[in-house]
Amino acid sequence: MNVFIKDVGELSVDSGHSAAELAKRYGKGPKVVVAMKKNGELVDLSTPLDAGDEIEWVHADTDTGRSILRHSTAHVLAQAVTRLWPGAHYAIGPAIDEGFYYDFELPGSAHFEEKDLEEIETEMRKVIAEGQSFERKAYSFEDGLEIFSDQPFKVEIIKGVASQSEDSSTASEEGVSQAGITVYANSSGFVDLCRGPHVPSTSYLGHFKLTRISGAYWRGDEKRPQLQRIYGTAWESKAALEGYLKMLEEAAKRDHRKLGLELDLFHFPPEIGSGLPVFHPKGALLRYLMEEFSRKAHLRAGYEFAWTPHLAKENLFNISGHLQWYKDGMFPPMELEGSTYYMKPMNCPMHILIYQSRARSYRELPLRLFEFGTVYRYERSGTLHGLARVRGLTQDDSHIFCAKDQLATEVERLIRFVLALLGAFGLTNFEAEVATRPEKYIGSDEDWEVATASLIEALDNIGVAYKIAPGEGAFYAPKIDVHLTDAIGRRWQVSTLQVDLQEPQRFDLGYTSQDNTSETPYMLHRALFGSVERFMAILIEHYAGALPAWLSPTQVVVLPVSEGSMSYAKAVSKAAKGIGARSHVDEAREPLGARIRRAKMDKVPFVIVVGEEDEKAGTVGVNRRGSSAPERGVALAAFLEELSSEVKEPELVGFSYDD
Amino acid sequence: MNVFIKDVGELSVDSGHSAAELAKRYGKGPKVVVAMKKNGELVDLSTPLDAGDEIEWVHADTDTGRSILRHSTAHVLAQAVTRLWPGAHYAIGPAIDEGFYYDFELPGSAHFEEKDLEEIETEMRKVIAEGQSFERKAYSFEDGLEIFSDQPFKVEIIKGVASQSEDSSTASEEGVSQAGITVYANSSGFVDLCRGPHVPSTSYLGHFKLTRISGAYWRGDEKRPQLQRIYGTAWESKAALEGYLKMLEEAAKRDHRKLGLELDLFHFPPEIGSGLPVFHPKGALLRYLMEEFSRKAHLRAGYEFAWTPHLAKENLFNISGHLQWYKDGMFPPMELEGSTYYMKPMNCPMHILIYQSRARSYRELPLRLFEFGTVYRYERSGTLHGLARVRGLTQDDSHIFCAKDQLATEVERLIRFVLALLGAFGLTNFEAEVATRPEKYIGSDEDWEVATASLIEALDNIGVAYKIAPGEGAFYAPKIDVHLTDAIGRRWQVSTLQVDLQEPQRFDLGYTSQDNTSETPYMLHRALFGSVERFMAILIEHYAGALPAWLSPTQVVVLPVSEGSMSYAKAVSKAAKGIGARSHVDEAREPLGARIRRAKMDKVPFVIVVGEEDEKAGTVGVNRRGSSAPERGVALAAFLEELSSEVKEPELVGFSYDD
Repeated sequence: MNVFIKDVGELSVDSGHSAAELAKRYGKGPKVVVAMKKNGELVDLSTPLDAGDEIEWVHADTDTGRSILRHSTAHVLAQAVTRLWPGAHYAIGPAIDEGFYYDFELPGSAHFEEKDLEEIETEMRKVIAEGQSFERKAYSFEDGLEIFSDQPFKVEIIKGVASQSEDSSTASEEGVSQAGITVYANSSGFVDLCRGPHVPSTSYLGHFKLTRISGAYWRGDEKRPQLQRIYGTAWESKAALEGYLKMLEEAAKRDHRKLGLELDLFHFPPEIGSGLPVFHPKGALLRYLMEEFSRKAHLRAGYEFAWTPHLAKENLFNISGHLQWYKDGMFPPMELEGSTYYMKPMNCPMHILIYQSRARSYRELPLRLFEFGTVYRYERSGTLHGLARVRGLTQDDSHIFCAKDQLATEVERLIRFVLALLGAFGLTNFEAEVATRPEKYIGSDEDWEVATASLIEALDNIGVAYKIAPGEGAFYAPKIDVHLTDAIGRRWQVSTLQVDLQEPQRFDLGYTSQDNTSETPYMLHRALFGSVERFMAILIEHYAGALPAWLSPTQVVVLPVSEGSMSYAKAVSKAAKGIGARSHVDEAREPLGARIRRAKMDKVPFVIVVGEEDEKAGTVGVNRRGSSAPERGVALAAFLEELSSEVKEPELVGFSYDD
Repeated sequence: MNVFIKDVGELSVDSGHSAAELAKRYGKGPKVVVAMKKNGELVDLSTPLDAGDEIEWVHADTDTGRSILRHSTAHVLAQAVTRLWPGAHYAIGPAIDEGFYYDFELPGSAHFEEKDLEEIETEMRKVIAEGQSFERKAYSFEDGLEIFSDQPFKVEIIKGVASQSEDSSTASEEGVSQAGITVYANSSGFVDLCRGPHVPSTSYLGHFKLTRISGAYWRGDEKRPQLQRIYGTAWESKAALEGYLKMLEEAAKRDHRKLGLELDLFHFPPEIGSGLPVFHPKGALLRYLMEEFSRKAHLRAGYEFAWTPHLAKENLFNISGHLQWYKDGMFPPMELEGSTYYMKPMNCPMHILIYQSRARSYRELPLRLFEFGTVYRYERSGTLHGLARVRGLTQDDSHIFCAKDQLATEVERLIRFVLALLGAFGLTNFEAEVATRPEKYIGSDEDWEVATASLIEALDNIGVAYKIAPGEGAFYAPKIDVHLTDAIGRRWQVSTLQVDLQEPQRFDLGYTSQDNTSETPYMLHRALFGSVERFMAILIEHYAGALPAWLSPTQVVVLPVSEGSMSYAKAVSKAAKGIGARSHVDEAREPLGARIRRAKMDKVPFVIVVGEEDEKAGTVGVNRRGSSAPERGVALAAFLEELSSEVKEPELVGFSYDD
């Protein structure tokens, strides 16, 4: 029979021929194939081939391939744990971004400790060395309950679906559907409930590491048993694993939560509540510098400011649809004078009220409203992560109201502005993702086409790399997400741009056209930094705390070698301030070495040392951040000239103001 | 017998001599005496004198005197209404700031209309012309119920106190106490429950005007009967009344709510809720200009920024005492994950958490934290007034932590900064009020003395006018309130400065002194504008919307006479932008006159008209705001020079930066 293999071509194979065998011969180059797409469906390599099948290999070094490697490694972890702790209960063990985890309950009062991870890894390596096959099998509910009779969590999952009380999407990942269950059995006898697919054999695995242990409630419910979760990572090669571990190590050094404390930028007071940071003087100054740079750029780019409150009556969020679609993400209600108020989770409904406050003419469009609007969202405790995921976030939020024939120009101008502004912060490694119309959508096909085409055309014109994420738009609008890659190769989603077809209709917005007819404007939603908090986290991690000089809270510290050069130190600092730098003298009566170390810990771009000879010669000693040796005897005027250019705010590149 | 009259001296008078007679002879100059303080107690002039009494006249042109005039005029109003609408019920009629009101229920379905006010005034003039005496009488509850048997609201007040269910402080103003009731009877037979005092006779009255009618619920309770309230004002002379009415007229023209709409600055969307404004582009730009000017001044003056969220868990407000003392002024609670959250009504607890985030040394003091912090307060609907009284307000809030020996210097520096910053906005007519230790207070006497002395000494050193408000400090701190007088003579309270002795102790704040001991810092609370919203209201009313050029959202509008001069108009506008002005061309195809009128309505400081001759000659026509005639043929360079100096931010006068 014939099968078609993508990137290989049509092959004539014997009926019953194993895809795993084929993959070894017709995989692409040295890359390992771990699964396949058979007529578009992701399946095990052991799945029998049929005549006319269209096959696409899934390689180990792709997102899907890694996810399979990680899921299979999670099974190996569970097998190792049950070997080492007979009677251990295993609950759920999925692949996640960059790794996997598995939740366990050990027999009696046993508990994992950090030191156990090495022993478990050793046992896992044994399982892998045994080259156990993964075999997919289907059973009835009754047989399933029998197979897992000593595994109460598996039993609960199976019973849940059998009685239809179970959330079917989660259960389906676990290999349970209304038709019965599927399990993967290793040749050792270990079985686990699983939808699959998996690698053919444990011999495909090996480049893994267990990373940490944490607590986790069964079903995420604090009233249910507390389990222990073991996290690990797995990769397609030794080099990929090592690269990842190295990146983790580097990331830990750059962790903005750690640096935020060391640089005295912010903290999360438990008295205020989770996910609600306070910004200390240096952090608040950094916020201000980021915001003020952005505000000035927005003004110059033809945006107009808006300012709106942090809460509103519920009806506003009924009209906008937030209470219908987003209530779980909102803070709980407040009851006042017979009305119900909510903290705003987004700024758009309020910007719409400004648009609506009077009749609008085509001459006013595009109307670009901009606000640093602080919104409050109920993120679950477990998902909070420093400044990167908070409950109170300040969006650099813009809503642009424009006519249909302005849409394409406006979108292109907007993306150029976004990229130029991000670029000014030193972030230039972008990729865009265009999320298009999903299966369920509202609005006319024509509207969707116009909107989606405007996004793609803009990206093409600008020449920025993008991927299409088919069907991943919101049900009311297509969008562009901008991702950036930081200095250590991590991707962060930052800006979002949506072309909204629906809110203008829900709020019945209008404008008078040149022909004196009433028209509905298009509305673009756009957050550029994303949020100030998250963007600050990205900047701190990207620069490992050594922010560009123009963003550094302290730009210059002047250290007099001794009391005798104090007045000269003050004069130097005053000269630095005179050209607009943030400078001060560290007057502490401490050894020079200690003062230099402190200034370097604070990641001050210029640490200036002056002695009495400097005063006579009109020079300074310059310690530039990142350079190991200080430069002595620099003429003060030359230093000030260098400083002046270093502390200057950057220009926007790739965006033309109209002024 | 002898009595002592303040500012007159000791007099020998016959026993039984009337104080009203004495006042006519020994009142001071032409000023009318309306009541007296007898041994410190405010009483009617008809109160009998005793040997040795110390008397102080209360003149009609003082705050207390006017309050009595107004209260007596309210009685005349009630008498006039009962004459015109027999069977009318009169409820409560106090003096208020600048006037008085009285609440009525008319018989049957009768209602006051605006046109009735003139007729009522005429009837009041008759009552006044009759020269009816006011006579104070005391009765038992039983007699009181008899006297007011046809006045159900009076009956309710009397019964309330008799049964002890009544709020005794309100009732006491109404002339009801546990001992019985007092009434004031006019010689016409009209009686009213009243504590008094009153003028001796209606002939003392006459310079009054009824101003408006509004609805008011009995007892302010919407479940009780709805009454009609008539407002009026009364003064000591025709000139004073006319001056006040003229000021009212002027104030109405300057009303920031009206101008806010006309200038498209802000509005209060009902969808969001009462007291919660949204700022439109021009209003948000004005906010930004005010805030950014202030931020830069604060940075230069040695303040450091803070940024804190808008809500916190209840325990923070338990420690700070807000939930104990201020709960009624707070928004209602939100319940999240088993914790109770409140919107913050003040920023201080959060600034304290920043102070507390690490150990502090004397070297860091004074530590001046500054934030534009938006707080939410539950102001009753009836008290809301445009931007001047809102529920969401942004304080320009500072908390200064300092050592005891820094207090005096810091307070003085702070007041100089406050006055200089207010002065930069063109507000220079100040008076301070020092509120001192009340009867009930916490903290040591020495602490109070140090704190109060530091406030007074600072005001003396600076030479700013002040009054002492004895005993009006908060129970935990003395304070200075700064009042300013606006362009039409109205007083507004703006800045507040408190020396807080208690919060640092409640939060157990400390710092390490030079001697290595642990000390508690003093804490100064300070709002300079008061709130951005209220200060914007003051600016709008003070300038009648014609804000100084540096604060004007649009500074220049360029109007081409015809299409032919469009490109020159654009060049002129671009040149204006080039020197930092906010300028645009009004391109609308409308007659020049209409475009000039629109720009003047918008109170644009410079309306520039250019024609083809201007282009040839390199000139512009300049319409300066407030000047009736345009100046033609002004050289463009000369105009730009003038513009440049007009749009420049002001310097701070009377405050020296350290830099």
